[in-house]
Amino acid sequence: MTIKLYCFGESGNAYKAALTLELSGLDWEPVYVDFFGGETRTPEYREINPMGEAPVMVDGDVTLSQSGAIQDYVSSKSGKLGGRSAAERREILRWQFWDNHKMSSVAGMTRFLMNFIPEDKRPAEVIAFNQGRLKSAYKTLESELSTRDWLVGDAITLADISCCGYLFYPEPFGFDRTEWPAIDAWLTRIAETPGWKHPYDLMPGSPADRA
Amino acid sequence: MTIKLYCFGESGNAYKAALTLELSGLDWEPVYVDFFGGETRTPEYREINPMGEAPVMVDGDVTLSQSGAIQDYVSSKSGKLGGRSAAERREILRWQFWDNHKMSSVAGMTRFLMNFIPEDKRPAEVIAFNQGRLKSAYKTLESELSTRDWLVGDAITLADISCCGYLFYPEPFGFDRTEWPAIDAWLTRIAETPGWKHPYDLMPGSPADRA
Repeated sequence: MTIKLYCFGESGNAYKAALTLELSGLDWEPVYVDFFGGETRTPEYREINPMGEAPVMVDGDVTLSQSGAIQDYVSSKSGKLGGRSAAERREILRWQFWDNHKMSSVAGMTRFLMNFIPEDKRPAEVIAFNQGRLKSAYKTLESELSTRDWLVGDAITLADISCCGYLFYPEPFGFDRTEWPAIDAWLTRIAETPGWKHPYDLMPGSPADRA
Repeated sequence: MTIKLYCFGESGNAYKAALTLELSGLDWEPVYVDFFGGETRTPEYREINPMGEAPVMVDGDVTLSQSGAIQDYVSSKSGKLGGRSAAERREILRWQFWDNHKMSSVAGMTRFLMNFIPEDKRPAEVIAFNQGRLKSAYKTLESELSTRDWLVGDAITLADISCCGYLFYPEPFGFDRTEWPAIDAWLTRIAETPGWKHPYDLMPGSPADRA
């Protein structure tokens, strides 16, 4: 049975789930969620996810939200991208939590505030504060990646896919990869992984559709 | 061997790890980290955790940060608090990610900004914005808990321990449990769990020490 992923191109959290599915080799297809048109607030969507989240993965009778939990499910099912030992699996989970806690949650919100709401409603103090927090996160990532090619072990894992979730997008949110050479080289390695696709190529929906 | 948890009472993230250890029945002890005195920035601490995080758990040759990853380790080792089926385990992980992504990351920062920095440096717009995000998170939690006693299954799990991480603290950050009856009742159930302790009783360090 084909796994369905309810997603939209602009969502870095959806991208983490979609790229994990794509690189796992499992059979999957995206189902477009019109987030900006309010679809996640409709009763129909709330039947799939009462919390109104995206992405949501449906695999037979398993329905799951939160990109980190979907990544874990896909890795367990496929046997791919999840590390080669108990120690690696722990480190991968640690990076997934770090990303959700310290980086993607802030990056996603900041990108939203800077690009997807009317210009006169953008809260300048919030954006500046978040960019300060993001800079700390990039520093940590840069420092860790300056010593090795991948976050955990010697191959791409869920950890890398989680942490890169927002970093390929072209819209400004306070990240310029040319300022972070180790992150830049790592993003190039990810993009050179066989099967890799840019978020706007992997999932339906992009700012261009609404222009 | 006794598990060591590097922690301090004010940290809700440390509390999630400490309460998981306490309720798991494993042998553990807290090691006080003088966060407000700058200890996490010292070279000695960076040897334990290069990223300067707290909490950090050390169990023999396993060193782990991120409360969610520590929770997972403790549950696997003790066989407690991790759910009774694969479906429950998935739901628990989903809630842990939801909490790190949507609730604790924002609650922790907001509480810090409102209580632990000088009054004239508190960014009002950031605090108000974060409180709006937190209200959405409380609404979700209230709605889910109005249908059942525990977030996953019929007993306390890592999911409950993660989501309650900041909700027992007395310092103001925009959460008043009397406004949320289902959350309030759930917090009472958690506090009535045998072995439960308040963060300032479970870990060393509290604002009273610095008064």
